[in-house]
Amino acid sequence: MKAVSYRNVALGRGFLKDHEDLNRRVTIPAVYDRFFETNRITAVTRNWPENADKTVHKFWDSDVAKWMESAAYALAKEWDEALEKKVEELVDGILKYQLPDGYFNSCYDTETRFQSRDNHELYCAGHYMEAAVAYYEATGRDRFLKAMCCYADFIDDYFRVRNAAPFLTPGHEEIELALTRLFRATGERRYLDLAGWFLKTRGANGIDTPVRDFFSRNYQQDNAPVSEIQEATGHAVRACYLYAAMADYAGEAGDEALQEACKAVFRDIVRRKLYVTGGIGSAYEGESFTIPYDLPNETAYAETCAAIALFFFAHKMLLLTGDASYADVMETCLYNGILSGLSRSGDEFFYVNPLRLDRKFENRYTALSARFPKRPLRRRVKVFNCSCCPPNLTRLFASIGSYVFGADEKTVYVNLFDNAAYSDGKRQVRVEMRTPWDGVLKIHSENTARLAVRIPGWHHESGGYIVSSVPYRAVNGYAVFENPASGLWIRFEGIRPTAVAADPRVTENAGKAAFRLGATVYCLEECDNPEPLTLFADSKRLSEAVPVWNELEQRTELLVPGLRPKVPENALYVPAAALSFQPVTLRLIPYRDFANRGDADMTVWIPCR
Amino acid sequence: MKAVSYRNVALGRGFLKDHEDLNRRVTIPAVYDRFFETNRITAVTRNWPENADKTVHKFWDSDVAKWMESAAYALAKEWDEALEKKVEELVDGILKYQLPDGYFNSCYDTETRFQSRDNHELYCAGHYMEAAVAYYEATGRDRFLKAMCCYADFIDDYFRVRNAAPFLTPGHEEIELALTRLFRATGERRYLDLAGWFLKTRGANGIDTPVRDFFSRNYQQDNAPVSEIQEATGHAVRACYLYAAMADYAGEAGDEALQEACKAVFRDIVRRKLYVTGGIGSAYEGESFTIPYDLPNETAYAETCAAIALFFFAHKMLLLTGDASYADVMETCLYNGILSGLSRSGDEFFYVNPLRLDRKFENRYTALSARFPKRPLRRRVKVFNCSCCPPNLTRLFASIGSYVFGADEKTVYVNLFDNAAYSDGKRQVRVEMRTPWDGVLKIHSENTARLAVRIPGWHHESGGYIVSSVPYRAVNGYAVFENPASGLWIRFEGIRPTAVAADPRVTENAGKAAFRLGATVYCLEECDNPEPLTLFADSKRLSEAVPVWNELEQRTELLVPGLRPKVPENALYVPAAALSFQPVTLRLIPYRDFANRGDADMTVWIPCR
Repeated sequence: MKAVSYRNVALGRGFLKDHEDLNRRVTIPAVYDRFFETNRITAVTRNWPENADKTVHKFWDSDVAKWMESAAYALAKEWDEALEKKVEELVDGILKYQLPDGYFNSCYDTETRFQSRDNHELYCAGHYMEAAVAYYEATGRDRFLKAMCCYADFIDDYFRVRNAAPFLTPGHEEIELALTRLFRATGERRYLDLAGWFLKTRGANGIDTPVRDFFSRNYQQDNAPVSEIQEATGHAVRACYLYAAMADYAGEAGDEALQEACKAVFRDIVRRKLYVTGGIGSAYEGESFTIPYDLPNETAYAETCAAIALFFFAHKMLLLTGDASYADVMETCLYNGILSGLSRSGDEFFYVNPLRLDRKFENRYTALSARFPKRPLRRRVKVFNCSCCPPNLTRLFASIGSYVFGADEKTVYVNLFDNAAYSDGKRQVRVEMRTPWDGVLKIHSENTARLAVRIPGWHHESGGYIVSSVPYRAVNGYAVFENPASGLWIRFEGIRPTAVAADPRVTENAGKAAFRLGATVYCLEECDNPEPLTLFADSKRLSEAVPVWNELEQRTELLVPGLRPKVPENALYVPAAALSFQPVTLRLIPYRDFANRGDADMTVWIPCR
Repeated sequence: MKAVSYRNVALGRGFLKDHEDLNRRVTIPAVYDRFFETNRITAVTRNWPENADKTVHKFWDSDVAKWMESAAYALAKEWDEALEKKVEELVDGILKYQLPDGYFNSCYDTETRFQSRDNHELYCAGHYMEAAVAYYEATGRDRFLKAMCCYADFIDDYFRVRNAAPFLTPGHEEIELALTRLFRATGERRYLDLAGWFLKTRGANGIDTPVRDFFSRNYQQDNAPVSEIQEATGHAVRACYLYAAMADYAGEAGDEALQEACKAVFRDIVRRKLYVTGGIGSAYEGESFTIPYDLPNETAYAETCAAIALFFFAHKMLLLTGDASYADVMETCLYNGILSGLSRSGDEFFYVNPLRLDRKFENRYTALSARFPKRPLRRRVKVFNCSCCPPNLTRLFASIGSYVFGADEKTVYVNLFDNAAYSDGKRQVRVEMRTPWDGVLKIHSENTARLAVRIPGWHHESGGYIVSSVPYRAVNGYAVFENPASGLWIRFEGIRPTAVAADPRVTENAGKAAFRLGATVYCLEECDNPEPLTLFADSKRLSEAVPVWNELEQRTELLVPGLRPKVPENALYVPAAALSFQPVTLRLIPYRDFANRGDADMTVWIPCR
């Protein structure tokens, strides 16, 4: 399967379109404004006001680059002179201050560059390359792309040919993805080879990683050659950028050993290290993967960028294998742990996405707050010091159409369900679903020899079945239609809310259930359920959960039979038989919507009784 | 009710006697040897070997003093020349190096003393005073006692009269308890007054506490005048030493406001901040109380000394009020969170007593171990750098008989159940119970006008009832017999294992049960139950738990109907309805015995299904 361009996809009114619009209308401008206010933009244009503090952080370029990439997608979908001007000013700055040899970073110069693999220079370079490709594809203008090709050439020479840096591979992966993309945009095989060189040099030698604990080889995905990786380790975003790049490269280069490593590490993530929300990275310390089944809810790190990185990795795996189960993971990330990073207003962000918020814990360590790892924020904020997540959200939603479809010469694939149309000039496929997962998917196709419609994993899981207007074969998780007539429809029937249990080894969740409707994971929030953290789901009536449409909030909520325990009067511990419960109805909202109505306790996992 | 001396109590064969013997035979010598090896003893005697590192830690004196107190009790029960010689050598050292004005501390001198309230000098002084009283009462020798009276006089002058220190009250409480005890031993009212002065000065002014976070006023129990304390805060051991001293002083001084504060803070602890094991202090950071219902199992701090401190506080409250429910808390501490601090071999110790051990978490933060709070130890060790707990255990078990009985002029109280005899020269009471809580308590008394036998809270809780050979009145949790005949017996009938639930606000334990038989709390350990952390108790059959005697281990264990989940094959999350369970029998051992058979996962709280 090949990726399709977002430019070949038109979204119709619906959930994804709403997010594409919100992104264009609110999020992209808001992120620009925050980046301007915090000097990130000026660090590139160097139009510093007098007396400005010209301190530049090493990862600012990556923030700007991801915003530029987002703007490029947005411009391709809908021209906007003001937006174009902002991008052009940035391109001007980059070209003006790019060093003659091709190097560009607003934080380093010829003297200070490439001193440490932890300085994020290749990471920033990669994001500029992605932005340049996006801008070229959106506008046809190639000066930015050429400049970044020049930068890539310099990197090729500096690292691979001359081995001139005191390190070999970057501490924060991204350049590998970018170079493969640059290869696809330019046809220049050297970029793909350089991507392969960065991948295959990693872990294959002993010199890259300093010995400090925090920067251990495991932490830096430097503990084994990439084709031997079996387990996801270290910084979750960096790891998944690496794995996505491995999958991307494996596809382009036909590297089967690498493909097997990608499958192994993906399996390790989804079977042992994945939050039910699509979040990854359990530990605040190092923003990292930890050990299998270690998925604490309250101290979940589950960075927004990490869910996005896993989404990218899953997408690359979907393209590589044609196996629809990878799209299940894309959905889990997209509709839960990614979107939870964004406020409904579109201009506020979570970096950390906990699965449980307990306000009283804010005061747990009053005496000691400074020494204890920060607790999760309970409100989204407009910008972070390390503000990688907001522009990652903008570039994803500005190009979200790409992920709805896939294609190869013979087949058009439908991967996500919403209202959307794909057209590549010859073939046309239009899919309609009123809201995600309302059960009826209508498909109109023209000139399409084969149509493959994903049958989502959650559909089987909820006991659903498929009714189709014409016969199909089930292959790799797709319903495959040969020479489909226009006006085809598929009904996903029997879709109900599902109470989900975790593998018992996730001891944190023993005896608890999470609720899912389609790919949307739900949570219990204090706004709808006073004291949500002490409520139980009625284990005998889990199957009686029902969806209800909330017109005001424009979302499907769930009503679940629950039990409210009576607090014992005079004792902290009572005979279990003496604890009494009152039947109540729990109201659950989509997890992605939590923390949009002020301070509130919240939990995804609900104990059953 | 007045405390009785351990010298008036003879233990018969049984659980407490076994521990008294183990303590004398193994623990007291082992603690001395470790303290000798680590230079704690030599720091007092100053018989330094050549080239020794003479670095002395500020709390070493307290370790030595508590060991001396233990040895004094042991000597009173059974003379031992070698032991006496060790104590005398220490007394020699103290008297030789005591400064002319009365000050003694092996870490400080005239120049460096009393610089900071965090230097533990008054804490060490208090422990020496307690040791001196104990040694005087055990041997009749008064040179140590006189020396410590001289020290107390100096402190009275230095702090109260001259206000010569840059602080008013100690950072680590203990002197208040010691001075009240010194008053009782000597009849010198000034010592009681000084105890009252230290108590009442605390929290009543703004100058004591430095502003650093770690040493906040809450943390140091310096946030309110003691008679206004409502909530337990800060360092758990220090707090309960303070509260015990408040209760002790309130009794001696007839201070009713202080007594009310003691009741309030005790209630705060047992209703909101107490582990089911009698442990207190939820946080590693600061070894401290945190917020109500914050009782994490795996990261429980629950220091052995804190459980001992709460035991002392409960005992003082029992004496103050005559309310038997305080003895319930004494039992909970003694048979669980205190004894868990000691290996069955008697020479190894826990400082931290978690309610859950999960071995895999040792590797959670491999990359980051140095930066993350230490995890609980999984094996007891012979000595700590901060080795306060071992000599606290020795002094408790060397005088454990004191806690079995209480007395006032008319009444003898039976507070704990075992085989023990009380005699004060006139009255004699002998109680017999084959093992604790086997149900039949026989009591022989002579010349006792009134006998009050505690009716334990767990007895009601488990649905038990009492059958007695003669009529009694129930008063304050006691069965009160007037002019009892010898050969009285009481049968506690219907005592069964109890599945206990926590207040639902302890969200960590939602849907879980702990099991208790009498006052003994049980746990599930890996030695008996592979993968204990993934096992469930069968919620429909909780009442079918049965006790079984393990002859080899000489303990009562519990068999509980359980369920073992089948691990799903291919997914981390599955529909709850698809999770399957196999009936199994869980074997539970007393919590105090965990971690005596090598590395093993363990949990007190078991999810129910």
